[in-house]
Amino acid sequence: MDLWFSERHTPNVKFSIRVDRQLYCGQSEFQRIDVFESKEFGRFLTLDGYMMLTEKDEFIYHEMITHVPMAVHPTVRKVLVIGAGDGGVIRELTRYPSIDHIDLVEIDPLVLEVCRKYLPQTSCRLDDERVHIRFEDGLKYIRTRENEYDLIIVDSTDPFGPGEGLFTKEFYGNCFKALRDDGIMVNQHESPFYEEDAAAMQRAHKRIVDSFPISRVYQAHIPTYPSGHWLFGFASKQYHPVHDLQAVTWNLLGLSTRYYTTRLHTGAFALPAYVEELLRDVE
Amino acid sequence: MDLWFSERHTPNVKFSIRVDRQLYCGQSEFQRIDVFESKEFGRFLTLDGYMMLTEKDEFIYHEMITHVPMAVHPTVRKVLVIGAGDGGVIRELTRYPSIDHIDLVEIDPLVLEVCRKYLPQTSCRLDDERVHIRFEDGLKYIRTRENEYDLIIVDSTDPFGPGEGLFTKEFYGNCFKALRDDGIMVNQHESPFYEEDAAAMQRAHKRIVDSFPISRVYQAHIPTYPSGHWLFGFASKQYHPVHDLQAVTWNLLGLSTRYYTTRLHTGAFALPAYVEELLRDVE
Amino acid sequence: MDLWFSERHTPNVKFSIRVDRQLYCGQSEFQRIDVFESKEFGRFLTLDGYMMLTEKDEFIYHEMITHVPMAVHPTVRKVLVIGAGDGGVIRELTRYPSIDHIDLVEIDPLVLEVCRKYLPQTSCRLDDERVHIRFEDGLKYIRTRENEYDLIIVDSTDPFGPGEGLFTKEFYGNCFKALRDDGIMVNQHESPFYEEDAAAMQRAHKRIVDSFPISRVYQAHIPTYPSGHWLFGFASKQYHPVHDLQAVTWNLLGLSTRYYTTRLHTGAFALPAYVEELLRDVE
Amino acid sequence: MDLWFSERHTPNVKFSIRVDRQLYCGQSEFQRIDVFESKEFGRFLTLDGYMMLTEKDEFIYHEMITHVPMAVHPTVRKVLVIGAGDGGVIRELTRYPSIDHIDLVEIDPLVLEVCRKYLPQTSCRLDDERVHIRFEDGLKYIRTRENEYDLIIVDSTDPFGPGEGLFTKEFYGNCFKALRDDGIMVNQHESPFYEEDAAAMQRAHKRIVDSFPISRVYQAHIPTYPSGHWLFGFASKQYHPVHDLQAVTWNLLGLSTRYYTTRLHTGAFALPAYVEELLRDVE
Repeated sequence: MDLWFSERHTPNVKFSIRVDRQLYCGQSEFQRIDVFESKEFGRFLTLDGYMMLTEKDEFIYHEMITHVPMAVHPTVRKVLVIGAGDGGVIRELTRYPSIDHIDLVEIDPLVLEVCRKYLPQTSCRLDDERVHIRFEDGLKYIRTRENEYDLIIVDSTDPFGPGEGLFTKEFYGNCFKALRDDGIMVNQHESPFYEEDAAAMQRAHKRIVDSFPISRVYQAHIPTYPSGHWLFGFASKQYHPVHDLQAVTWNLLGLSTRYYTTRLHTGAFALPAYVEELLRDVE
Repeated sequence: MDLWFSERHTPNVKFSIRVDRQLYCGQSEFQRIDVFESKEFGRFLTLDGYMMLTEKDEFIYHEMITHVPMAVHPTVRKVLVIGAGDGGVIRELTRYPSIDHIDLVEIDPLVLEVCRKYLPQTSCRLDDERVHIRFEDGLKYIRTRENEYDLIIVDSTDPFGPGEGLFTKEFYGNCFKALRDDGIMVNQHESPFYEEDAAAMQRAHKRIVDSFPISRVYQAHIPTYPSGHWLFGFASKQYHPVHDLQAVTWNLLGLSTRYYTTRLHTGAFALPAYVEELLRDVE
Repeated sequence: MDLWFSERHTPNVKFSIRVDRQLYCGQSEFQRIDVFESKEFGRFLTLDGYMMLTEKDEFIYHEMITHVPMAVHPTVRKVLVIGAGDGGVIRELTRYPSIDHIDLVEIDPLVLEVCRKYLPQTSCRLDDERVHIRFEDGLKYIRTRENEYDLIIVDSTDPFGPGEGLFTKEFYGNCFKALRDDGIMVNQHESPFYEEDAAAMQRAHKRIVDSFPISRVYQAHIPTYPSGHWLFGFASKQYHPVHDLQAVTWNLLGLSTRYYTTRLHTGAFALPAYVEELLRDVE
Repeated sequence: MDLWFSERHTPNVKFSIRVDRQLYCGQSEFQRIDVFESKEFGRFLTLDGYMMLTEKDEFIYHEMITHVPMAVHPTVRKVLVIGAGDGGVIRELTRYPSIDHIDLVEIDPLVLEVCRKYLPQTSCRLDDERVHIRFEDGLKYIRTRENEYDLIIVDSTDPFGPGEGLFTKEFYGNCFKALRDDGIMVNQHESPFYEEDAAAMQRAHKRIVDSFPISRVYQAHIPTYPSGHWLFGFASKQYHPVHDLQAVTWNLLGLSTRYYTTRLHTGAFALPAYVEELLRDVE
């Protein structure tokens, strides 16, 4: 069957996956949601035609957005996750017994429903009793929170469409306010390679730098995202992502991972010269 | 103009670049050679339909295959480069005044001729007087060399077609013999992500491990190569790629780079857990 | 959504349709069955990845395979339809009050079931009381029939896979036997344009010519079939497809059609010179 | 080599040809001109990315636009050809000894130059001494001509870009004036199948009907044009395209053709019911 899903990484670059069959197609109030089955990547989820995750490589994204802050902050008890209706971040977070409360704020109930049904690999821990799901706009939710969370993970879509507000200065400022004095915010931070992505990445970085005293960027290889070179932002009130890494403690937890290691943790903050320059330009 | 070059990264994954025009098409004794002009990546070179390099991201590959060993070995004077007819490795090597002799062994004279004409960005230093070009099969050339080189860079194509011999045990053994007592061999080492590439990577790694006392793998983000996650092999008689890094010395050289930094040098050897496991399986 | 179904018309030619969503995907004992929804062509059915019909242009195929023989034979009462599980031929046949018995022999019950559910546009008349559905291999069914039908319509898939037997000499010989003395057989006859299709078309034509005293080929424009130039075979014991056209009678029936007209009937038998030559070569 | 040229027949339909290599790429004052080499279609010419002709199927277009009027008009001596810089129409016209003067009015000298060099199959007769080439806008050229030509062939591009003026009422009126009392104008008339093409076809038809007493449309199977179903307009002051067909005379000329025959001539005017209706709607 010659059935291909393509995503234009730029108007002149296309990444295409052969689809075996479509498992779901629906339209919510916010976006179009599709789930496909493929030979190479297993099942994959797209929102408005943009790749969100595939079963084959989602571990990279979810491990890197979760374990990096968790290996730095010594005592995370209360976490806010914004976006992330697929449940991948929740799956990783619930592996930590020390966490006793997770608020998951997802704007679109249908995403959660579809992922529960078609993507058990990521949604498997959504029913953990520590998880409190709120179907709300993260941008609004955060406005009223103060000094409440140890960790905020912003697992947003790209900075247009429903995810747009999660890249604004207002939002980052409110995240700062919602965090406790030693809180950390981590966000997906786009890619440095293609021009438009790099510009979006710079805009986001500038706003975070303006809001947090410590702000660093780290990277991972995510083959199904544009250019395969993806960035995450680590913003913090107190902890330095590398100097404060609790490698021994984290390794004693005995969590088995497929991408993240505490050695790679440090390496991930060593960015290519051109990425450092892009960041410096807006710092 | 809807004209697209595609490369199948697997039978079920396709990466496509919009082509503005074809600049060259020819058939040598060894392979078909094409040069295209594109909006997104500038000019790019393909051999037998496989992407070799693009003007936009070749700096990543060429910096990483060259500067990593050069920042470790304190006194590289004589270098052997196998493959690399595009001249990118030569361009980086000739920036080091300490190097006084470079043998470039390329099997296909037409590759060199085409790159000289259409890819000045990489071929610009092929006429440096220290560069000695030999049109020979690297596999044969290396058989007769002994205790001669400080550094060998194997910039081969993939392990099939003309480049196949450069992934054999015989070849690596002969590289060991051709190196001086503190010599280093670096090679392009394929990708860990897609199944077939990973298997090729493991085969190569096993053979290198069998031939050299020190053998490590490092990585870079190369958006136009399959999965964007590319590996290099660092094999050495004496120097450890991280512990023996001469960061201060290298930085004093004042070479301006766009990807490589001595900080990233160390980070590049911090591999994802699943890649470490693939390597351990064959060590 | 960049989701495209493609069919390779040859290894070097591709026809692609943007898919809005997949409505069905299943595997029967005989073949893979898919139904898609598209903006340009409405719903479309594929078997083993080959285009069978689209809502936008199926009227051309179904009118041309049905009304051409019906406008020639003056008194069709009993009809055998082989293949055609989508019901399109049945829809056209049931418009003739003079027909009192239609045997539909379809090898694959799942095709019928799927078309009933997802393609009402063609399957709408499958429940007509004159229609007798038999899930059998047409090749076997026809062996035992003798002097029974006025018209046989062979609405087969391509001459490989489940449809292969419907292009054999044995099959055509048995069709001859199964027809009454003034019977007509019409079949889908592939395309003359691409080399491999043309060869298949010639093979089929040769076998029909050997089996029937009168054998002519006619054509239609079917945009979603390879080359858009499609042929049908008209084989008969007695009636000539053009000289015996009952134009006045047929027009008095008052059937409204979108492709077929009695004027076009004659024109459809006027073939391009190169097609005439391909046919002559095997006559 | 996975290099494909695609043309979007609508935003949701794509026709793609594997390209072996690009032979030419240039930009004239009017348009971008490309010539490609392909396995399936031989060489092909595109203007601004739109398919103009392929070596494999150009005979269909060129025979049908030339021989249909030539087999009707008994004494064509002077012909005006507008567009047609590829020379295909000229090749067919120069086979008639009775013609003693052909004016070829092509707006773009580069098209002619490129076709002379890369498409000898069509441009082979451009040097015939009866051919007078003028590099002018056909729309302007025709304004000053009166009672001069027996036949005008409008071999234009699509009704946008440089060819736009050749679909206007002014243009058709001036063609009428430029023709002798028994003159014929034939034009390429777009396709009836896809919605936008059909609308363009109707607009053109309406304008021709308003300008000529006799105006009929005929069709051919052209696999590389959108839908494969292509139309031509036959507009005339006196001769009816079917009733006045000089079949015997034409066949006595002994011209060997691959698509056109005098039998097919008549058949080509027998249009599908839905096309007749589209035309009637604007007559």
